[in-house]
Amino acid sequence: MRVGVLTGGGDCPGLNAVIRAVTLALVQHDPRVEVLGVERGFLGLVEGHLRPVLPEQVRDLLDEGGTLLGTHNRANPFDYQGRDASAEALSVARRAGLDCLVAIGGDGTLTLAARFAELGLPVVGVPKTIDNDIAGNERSFGFDSAVAVVADALNRLKTTAASHHRIMVVETMGRDAGWIALEGGLAGGADAIVIPEQPFALEALARRLEACVARQGHGLVCVAEGAGLGDGAQLWQQLPDGVSRLGGIGNALVHALAGRWPDVEVRATVLGHLQRGGAPTAFDRVLATRFGVAAAQAVVDGQFGITVALQGDRCVHVPLSAVAGQNRRVPAGHELLRCAQALGALPE
Amino acid sequence: MRVGVLTGGGDCPGLNAVIRAVTLALVQHDPRVEVLGVERGFLGLVEGHLRPVLPEQVRDLLDEGGTLLGTHNRANPFDYQGRDASAEALSVARRAGLDCLVAIGGDGTLTLAARFAELGLPVVGVPKTIDNDIAGNERSFGFDSAVAVVADALNRLKTTAASHHRIMVVETMGRDAGWIALEGGLAGGADAIVIPEQPFALEALARRLEACVARQGHGLVCVAEGAGLGDGAQLWQQLPDGVSRLGGIGNALVHALAGRWPDVEVRATVLGHLQRGGAPTAFDRVLATRFGVAAAQAVVDGQFGITVALQGDRCVHVPLSAVAGQNRRVPAGHELLRCAQALGALPE
Amino acid sequence: MRVGVLTGGGDCPGLNAVIRAVTLALVQHDPRVEVLGVERGFLGLVEGHLRPVLPEQVRDLLDEGGTLLGTHNRANPFDYQGRDASAEALSVARRAGLDCLVAIGGDGTLTLAARFAELGLPVVGVPKTIDNDIAGNERSFGFDSAVAVVADALNRLKTTAASHHRIMVVETMGRDAGWIALEGGLAGGADAIVIPEQPFALEALARRLEACVARQGHGLVCVAEGAGLGDGAQLWQQLPDGVSRLGGIGNALVHALAGRWPDVEVRATVLGHLQRGGAPTAFDRVLATRFGVAAAQAVVDGQFGITVALQGDRCVHVPLSAVAGQNRRVPAGHELLRCAQALGALPE
Amino acid sequence: MRVGVLTGGGDCPGLNAVIRAVTLALVQHDPRVEVLGVERGFLGLVEGHLRPVLPEQVRDLLDEGGTLLGTHNRANPFDYQGRDASAEALSVARRAGLDCLVAIGGDGTLTLAARFAELGLPVVGVPKTIDNDIAGNERSFGFDSAVAVVADALNRLKTTAASHHRIMVVETMGRDAGWIALEGGLAGGADAIVIPEQPFALEALARRLEACVARQGHGLVCVAEGAGLGDGAQLWQQLPDGVSRLGGIGNALVHALAGRWPDVEVRATVLGHLQRGGAPTAFDRVLATRFGVAAAQAVVDGQFGITVALQGDRCVHVPLSAVAGQNRRVPAGHELLRCAQALGALPE
Repeated sequence: MRVGVLTGGGDCPGLNAVIRAVTLALVQHDPRVEVLGVERGFLGLVEGHLRPVLPEQVRDLLDEGGTLLGTHNRANPFDYQGRDASAEALSVARRAGLDCLVAIGGDGTLTLAARFAELGLPVVGVPKTIDNDIAGNERSFGFDSAVAVVADALNRLKTTAASHHRIMVVETMGRDAGWIALEGGLAGGADAIVIPEQPFALEALARRLEACVARQGHGLVCVAEGAGLGDGAQLWQQLPDGVSRLGGIGNALVHALAGRWPDVEVRATVLGHLQRGGAPTAFDRVLATRFGVAAAQAVVDGQFGITVALQGDRCVHVPLSAVAGQNRRVPAGHELLRCAQALGALPE
Repeated sequence: MRVGVLTGGGDCPGLNAVIRAVTLALVQHDPRVEVLGVERGFLGLVEGHLRPVLPEQVRDLLDEGGTLLGTHNRANPFDYQGRDASAEALSVARRAGLDCLVAIGGDGTLTLAARFAELGLPVVGVPKTIDNDIAGNERSFGFDSAVAVVADALNRLKTTAASHHRIMVVETMGRDAGWIALEGGLAGGADAIVIPEQPFALEALARRLEACVARQGHGLVCVAEGAGLGDGAQLWQQLPDGVSRLGGIGNALVHALAGRWPDVEVRATVLGHLQRGGAPTAFDRVLATRFGVAAAQAVVDGQFGITVALQGDRCVHVPLSAVAGQNRRVPAGHELLRCAQALGALPE
Repeated sequence: MRVGVLTGGGDCPGLNAVIRAVTLALVQHDPRVEVLGVERGFLGLVEGHLRPVLPEQVRDLLDEGGTLLGTHNRANPFDYQGRDASAEALSVARRAGLDCLVAIGGDGTLTLAARFAELGLPVVGVPKTIDNDIAGNERSFGFDSAVAVVADALNRLKTTAASHHRIMVVETMGRDAGWIALEGGLAGGADAIVIPEQPFALEALARRLEACVARQGHGLVCVAEGAGLGDGAQLWQQLPDGVSRLGGIGNALVHALAGRWPDVEVRATVLGHLQRGGAPTAFDRVLATRFGVAAAQAVVDGQFGITVALQGDRCVHVPLSAVAGQNRRVPAGHELLRCAQALGALPE
Repeated sequence: MRVGVLTGGGDCPGLNAVIRAVTLALVQHDPRVEVLGVERGFLGLVEGHLRPVLPEQVRDLLDEGGTLLGTHNRANPFDYQGRDASAEALSVARRAGLDCLVAIGGDGTLTLAARFAELGLPVVGVPKTIDNDIAGNERSFGFDSAVAVVADALNRLKTTAASHHRIMVVETMGRDAGWIALEGGLAGGADAIVIPEQPFALEALARRLEACVARQGHGLVCVAEGAGLGDGAQLWQQLPDGVSRLGGIGNALVHALAGRWPDVEVRATVLGHLQRGGAPTAFDRVLATRFGVAAAQAVVDGQFGITVALQGDRCVHVPLSAVAGQNRRVPAGHELLRCAQALGALPE
């Protein structure tokens, strides 16, 4: 048997751990299985860049960040240099003798995987998202690592906030879904958490910070990059004139809040790519390994057209078609929201 | 309302985070609520050591290891200096004006909590266990931190194993339940994982390591302290004469394996208390916070005689009587076991 | 004896460790010594905000970031709300019964300390600078922590650079002195290091990255915020029209480099305050402790008008007047520069 | 030019970083230089195990623990399987075309290097020691990493000590030299530090802990493994009958101190190999890189028979003969000793 593996979309801690687990589990199952790595996501399938992945190459990759196969953000065989190259991709797969493909990636990659599955390619998906926002999957590898980076940053900035009597704003990833800011904010003890799923209310945030300044002389805000972008009654209407949204929500909040409290400066830190690279946490190494083993098992069992997923801390199979094009956001009343609310960290 | 809080049993990362969340959530709910800390577990209830816990004392405790209330391993009001002092404990609670008690602790503490609940004290339990072995609760705070310590240790020792061509054995906590060794071993890339729930087979372990030595020149073993203790056909019968069990399973394995491969030394590291102290991981800070908020909510709702617990990543209530005296071990066929097996890391 | 302690200037890992060491060493020397904390740097001396610092308050502060005394960036008694309030400050010191003052701070704070020393206040300085740029002092606490943050960020971003075939630019602190970028870049394996002390040459940097892209498909740049600001023949003249310096050097490099290599994106991360807050590394805890003990010893010995400093890994005394208003930059031909050069990481 | 590189003695964080820097600097200097790795220290020179080391193999090794060349603790060509095999080693070097050899190792390896230098092999040494005890060298790579592990362990154990009212004893490496325990103890806030260079006084230690228990209810001891081994009037004479030295000084202290304070248990943790493996700190990555570049420069300059070394934070050359067989211990009155003394952490 010959099994292709590719990683698509943005970098994410744990990708190498999945590749490792898929490879080791397949070879442990049957030493004759050959694993072929497809380079740079679906781009490599179109352009025919495949190479063998051997157990000894992956054995020590458990805690290596990144993906040894490379990845690509916008590789789309159905729209490759302006044309549909999906037939070429299928032909590459056929000529390489691939019996099936394990596609590790986010919504984009899994959507492409679903389309190839419809075209007859046996595909197993593995959900990958820093943002923890893939439908049908309750926790994705890489998310815990991102939350740990946010919590560590909040911890660091808190000492400066307290020492200088400042408001420190931390902008996290999360354009549509606020999971990172919500869980990271809880883990880092943010005084206020602002996420896209909640209506943005500048004055409520200011009131919350007013209380913090009065009580402890400083405040810590954790805001998702997509907060306030949602609808008409949102942040950008509430900002003072002249504050551009180009600088991002973190810097916008600095402008909107600056000067409200005498002698209390407001500063922003944008974490950006720090949340996306580097070694996975122990939790993510285990989860990525579970996903990889589950994907290998699906291959062995001939279960295709599905993605592995975590539900209720159990690895399950979900049809690719049920995942593609979906998005998992923080639902109203979710326990973590109520948790933040109970601690007074949800400005309302 | 006056709410008592105590922490019992061994130290565990996240205890302070629970105390913080309970306190902040109660005071956020109603600023008139008074929280009284009971010192050193149920010992403080017998001896009357209580003191107010104020929000400003706990606000910055999210990532502080340990418990500001102190704890005690064997405090038992029903067997206090050789007599039953439970009536005194109830009297202390009454005189202190406690409307209820939040008891944060392991099986021992929750069993005591259950007995006091039967005696009429309104109690809410919060499960605490490094070992992740409390019945009815799928994941406890502190466990992720312990796993991270084990994974970090395995990572460190792997470089020495590889550089020197050695077998390195890491002994983790886990007298009855192998969760730490199992998840820590997976997170740290152990070549062999040995837990109490599996029958111990020295020769199978040696075969597994034989393959590792042949392939990569070294091996990494993660063994729970309670492995091989279980029944008659266990480790200690399989060891060479003269190997005492007093030195622990890690050192016993060194003796049992030493000399099997020329020029490949075997060394053991006993992690011990390193797994139990220190700051919680981001994951554990969130989980401890969720438990603390859920306990505060139970208090507010008048839900007593229960413990909060995690099931399917949701905070639920479980009757204390269903938890007390139970023990959650790794069941045969558990996904993590199959995962270790699929990677060839389960000697059989 | 009554000893005042203050911390001035920006937050820095290790401030609390110095306060702890000063206090514990003084009280260990003579339990009758009283330590008085002056709040928010020299501001507290003008405004009369002092409070006792007790051993039990500081004993556990060794690894706490920030300063329990608070600090202030621009507190200047000689220019307080538009007037000279130095006499008030001296009068506060006198009324509080201060026999002397330990002033922990950067160039600004030490310059003020030197002026107060001239006015007759017995002062001992302790150099504090993230940037490692205080004259007469070869290594300052907080610097190692900042370097560790930079190295960790580079490690994280390297996985993304490699996985995506990108150029990742990391902007560090260092307006005038490039120590953080230089040492952080070496510690994080940057392909190119750009510091203020070197003439900025955009084309040399582009050539260096060209080689990296050709060889490995990606590149990692570590640039100090002050790079290219120096003189007429600098960065901003070399940038394409329309690139504003307001976004900082990191983002300016993105604009200047973007599009040079097909399919190789360029992204910047600005570390900012992350380098300045949080817990000190073990190295910085030791160094801060050494400085604190040395300052306490100077107080005991009646050595005033000096600052403690590190020279050749030994704690020495340097006259405050020799330090004030000076600045220690990376000298041409410094070993670390030659080191970066030898590895090809210095674009020239 | 063809340059051999070998690593000898125990594992140490930073070995790979030195190999990387030597290789990259040599090839950067002249792309025609060939680097040959000798496997497993001087053993590989006798047995003829050499292989090319290419820049692309080492570029990403900066933060990898261990040594890709392997190492060996007791490889001695002058006593190889009972005979002098030095001539064979020289012959291997000649046949491999080695122009010179960079030997990275501790006292044993550098002593062998000195002997080969006398026999005409052009050798450059690089000092490697976790213990920081190589003569002529003030700070070695790996030491900061070991200190960080000790400090982290002390931090973790302190929470348990405080929560349970216990004495926690941490045993560090350091058979002859106490640098790790001394600096680690200072970095981790140990209440008492015990090193081989100081006369061991059990009663003084007990008095120190008595004060800690009285004041804070717990205590933290950092003891080097070699403490109390020195001379006739040492620990083992002071211990109660029946306490064996086989269990190590940490466990011996548990026996010697147990029961002295009612309700205060004493527990020991032996860090062992945890201090020796794993990724180097940022500080050690820079220092290892400096050493590697300096060694490459010595090769280029034809400076042989020397070892690079750090003195006063400058990389210098020291004759191999001046280093071999020496040992750098903590001298009486050293600043760090006075520092520990000033904080009351040196039992006397």
